[in-house]
Amino acid sequence: MEFTAQLIADFIKGEIAGDANVTVSSFAKIEEGRPGSLSFLANPKYEKYLYETASSIVIVNKAQKITNSVNATLIKVDDAYMAFASLLELYHSSLPEKTGREEPVSVAASAQLGKDVFLGAFSCIGENACIGDGVKIHPQVYIGENVRIGDRTVLYPGVKVYRGCVIGSDCVLHAGVVIGADGFGFAPQTGADFKKIPQIGNAVIEDRVEIGANTCIDRATMGSTIIRRGVKLDNLIQVGHNVEIGENTVIASQTGISGSTKVGANCMLAGQVGLAGHLTIADGTKIGAQSGLNSSVTEPESTIMGTPAFGYKDWLRSSIIFKQLPNMKRKIDELDKKLNEKTDG
Amino acid sequence: MEFTAQLIADFIKGEIAGDANVTVSSFAKIEEGRPGSLSFLANPKYEKYLYETASSIVIVNKAQKITNSVNATLIKVDDAYMAFASLLELYHSSLPEKTGREEPVSVAASAQLGKDVFLGAFSCIGENACIGDGVKIHPQVYIGENVRIGDRTVLYPGVKVYRGCVIGSDCVLHAGVVIGADGFGFAPQTGADFKKIPQIGNAVIEDRVEIGANTCIDRATMGSTIIRRGVKLDNLIQVGHNVEIGENTVIASQTGISGSTKVGANCMLAGQVGLAGHLTIADGTKIGAQSGLNSSVTEPESTIMGTPAFGYKDWLRSSIIFKQLPNMKRKIDELDKKLNEKTDG
Amino acid sequence: MEFTAQLIADFIKGEIAGDANVTVSSFAKIEEGRPGSLSFLANPKYEKYLYETASSIVIVNKAQKITNSVNATLIKVDDAYMAFASLLELYHSSLPEKTGREEPVSVAASAQLGKDVFLGAFSCIGENACIGDGVKIHPQVYIGENVRIGDRTVLYPGVKVYRGCVIGSDCVLHAGVVIGADGFGFAPQTGADFKKIPQIGNAVIEDRVEIGANTCIDRATMGSTIIRRGVKLDNLIQVGHNVEIGENTVIASQTGISGSTKVGANCMLAGQVGLAGHLTIADGTKIGAQSGLNSSVTEPESTIMGTPAFGYKDWLRSSIIFKQLPNMKRKIDELDKKLNEKTDG
Repeated sequence: MEFTAQLIADFIKGEIAGDANVTVSSFAKIEEGRPGSLSFLANPKYEKYLYETASSIVIVNKAQKITNSVNATLIKVDDAYMAFASLLELYHSSLPEKTGREEPVSVAASAQLGKDVFLGAFSCIGENACIGDGVKIHPQVYIGENVRIGDRTVLYPGVKVYRGCVIGSDCVLHAGVVIGADGFGFAPQTGADFKKIPQIGNAVIEDRVEIGANTCIDRATMGSTIIRRGVKLDNLIQVGHNVEIGENTVIASQTGISGSTKVGANCMLAGQVGLAGHLTIADGTKIGAQSGLNSSVTEPESTIMGTPAFGYKDWLRSSIIFKQLPNMKRKIDELDKKLNEKTDG
Repeated sequence: MEFTAQLIADFIKGEIAGDANVTVSSFAKIEEGRPGSLSFLANPKYEKYLYETASSIVIVNKAQKITNSVNATLIKVDDAYMAFASLLELYHSSLPEKTGREEPVSVAASAQLGKDVFLGAFSCIGENACIGDGVKIHPQVYIGENVRIGDRTVLYPGVKVYRGCVIGSDCVLHAGVVIGADGFGFAPQTGADFKKIPQIGNAVIEDRVEIGANTCIDRATMGSTIIRRGVKLDNLIQVGHNVEIGENTVIASQTGISGSTKVGANCMLAGQVGLAGHLTIADGTKIGAQSGLNSSVTEPESTIMGTPAFGYKDWLRSSIIFKQLPNMKRKIDELDKKLNEKTDG
Repeated sequence: MEFTAQLIADFIKGEIAGDANVTVSSFAKIEEGRPGSLSFLANPKYEKYLYETASSIVIVNKAQKITNSVNATLIKVDDAYMAFASLLELYHSSLPEKTGREEPVSVAASAQLGKDVFLGAFSCIGENACIGDGVKIHPQVYIGENVRIGDRTVLYPGVKVYRGCVIGSDCVLHAGVVIGADGFGFAPQTGADFKKIPQIGNAVIEDRVEIGANTCIDRATMGSTIIRRGVKLDNLIQVGHNVEIGENTVIASQTGISGSTKVGANCMLAGQVGLAGHLTIADGTKIGAQSGLNSSVTEPESTIMGTPAFGYKDWLRSSIIFKQLPNMKRKIDELDKKLNEKTDG
């Protein structure tokens, strides 16, 4: 399908500079653009791509300075990134959607399925599970007994949800996600191996949560592991038993959160971060990649880094000196020698 | 189901303080207790919850000091945590168990299944596989050719066991676990890409091992990767080819162990630890979170931390000074200046 | 099956020292050898095993010094490791291969399958998917719409490939691998939760790539995430959207690469490394375990380490001093005191 610059400008309420009749049929990053593709420029730092790109149309911010000649047709809007995202969304929503029921599937007689549920081949739905309207259950998904899933949630192939867990509406769970496996609870026994502590709680995922591929969210020992509304989790993340993650917190890949830790709302955790158990992380905390925390963060809106983590800017300063440690040691030895010479002299 | 304090006290051989007829129907953490729930207090540090909790019954240690008025009925035992765990276990064992055989499944004619095996829908059992009595194979599990599995082992949905691997009795493998994928063995070739070294060994999991969701245990190049009796592995752990993990060792989430490393018995590895290949870790070693080891640990019962790891207390001391490095540098510059002034003066 | 030393020597073009008629029927590491097993010794460091091993045959380098009496029959070749690997390969290729089509499977009418494809039970092949000759699709694999897979590629049980992704020839994808899940793209919205940026690109895996168990390779926002020819990825690795990994680069377990980063050719990344987004890593870069990079590497063939990473040898020097920081601080305090005494005196 082809779209003219005029049509696109009308949709995103933008102003055209250039040929309004030029057409595009695909999206591309501005630096990878080709004739017939639509791009955007939001960060003024990349202005040069505006003059180099082969894309036919570029959406730009009204505030963007143009200091050179541009081949592409420009569409000027208040927020180029958001306008472009809305076009991606439009395109995405036009993709054919899976509906109906593939065969074979294994659905318990007592399970309740809402309207317009897609049920992919080789999926299992356990006793008394309750699935909302418009839910997409892709192939090879497992939904245990007594699981509840809200409306319009998407479970990609191979997602596993253990018995009794609860998933809200408008969630997206990517392939290989495991919800509700046993928390890691073992008690030492004198003269014997560890005793398993049964994990009889569940995991509760609220609405509008997205969970990346192969991420694991353990069930609680008692009560619930809770992922609050709007949380976004990347791939290969570990969330231990009885953890709670506050609203709209965003966590990057391979981060691990140990049992009973409470992460506040609107936090941002970078990749490969590790949090010890039983901590409390204040709202709005930002934690740099690979940081390790063994104590709570009480001050909201802090930005921290390192293992153990402290203020990000201080960590940067210490890191710079870490590289210079051999020089520093040499300097100290010199001072020592000088001082001894003077003392001896 | 409801249980009286009297009935519970009889079961765990405890003494009642308070109303013996009060009933509970659920478990809760003491700080999350509600009327009708049963809690425990093991750590004297949390004594205050005893006076605040809304739980109807609390199991406490006989040694617990009580300095204030308590609403709940108390049951006093020698070890509150263990008594509570035994009740959790009792409850857990009362949950309905899966039995029989769902359809469809794919079972090779030459496979041998023991008595009372549960076989979930869409599972595969390969040629000559041998499955013990009472094994629970949940849906969508894959068991390759010549795999042997001991009695009463539980394989949760989506577990994959490659051909020729061996799993003991009373093991638990959580969803998404992969046993016996190829070890990462490639040899450089001059003027060409890497040559794959075939991985013809297997992986052997002994009895009473628990393996967390999406954890991977590679097969050996030759011989066996071995996980000894009683080992507990958390989620998303990587165990390389020809690794051996000693009895009752416990390893937290996202830790990685490189090829041919031998971890001793009764070790505790925290989360996100990395061990290089071909190391030997002495029995009883404790390794702090995110530590990285590139050399062996020869002293049993050491506690180490950091990358590269050294004594935990020493690491703590160095970490504190790491934060002060900018101050230290300033101090050295001052000393230098002062000394030069004196020398010049 | 048994093979004589003579037969093996003929195959690998080696010279026999010892009994040419001795037979072996299995492979073993030299230190784990038993009568009837074949071993190799490539690293002169382990020479002692030559005199201790119970293996019946050992393949050695012609250059290997022999300073003691050896029980095993030796076969001397130019490159013992490669000769041994070729025997492993011969053995491996003699294992029975899966062929044909198990039932049930779910194959879209519009999907095209090449010759001699193995299709395991409970696998799904989506609309317009195109599968090359000799491809092995093990059980419980998911292949989405419009996916293309080259000849002879092996997909182990439970691999999930999202719609529109492309996989080359002679690739190996281990159990639980997820190709083409959505990249982690969310835009903050004032006064609301994050807005998902649709991920409409794909992931492209070129020829001769191996991908370890439970590794995740996200699809691009636009365009393609690209894994170039000959790349080898270990288990539990995260590859973000729009990443590109150059030819023959090798990456160890649990490493994570953030969105839009370009890793060069012939790089080696150790385990648990983290790369921030939008970086460029020069060809031939070697990155030590657990390193974290927040800036690009412009110098080819560098070896770096640490968080943030710098030259490996410099990092080693700084790490040694890190352990001595408490001593260093004490020294500085002493110097300060001495200097003040002198000044006061």
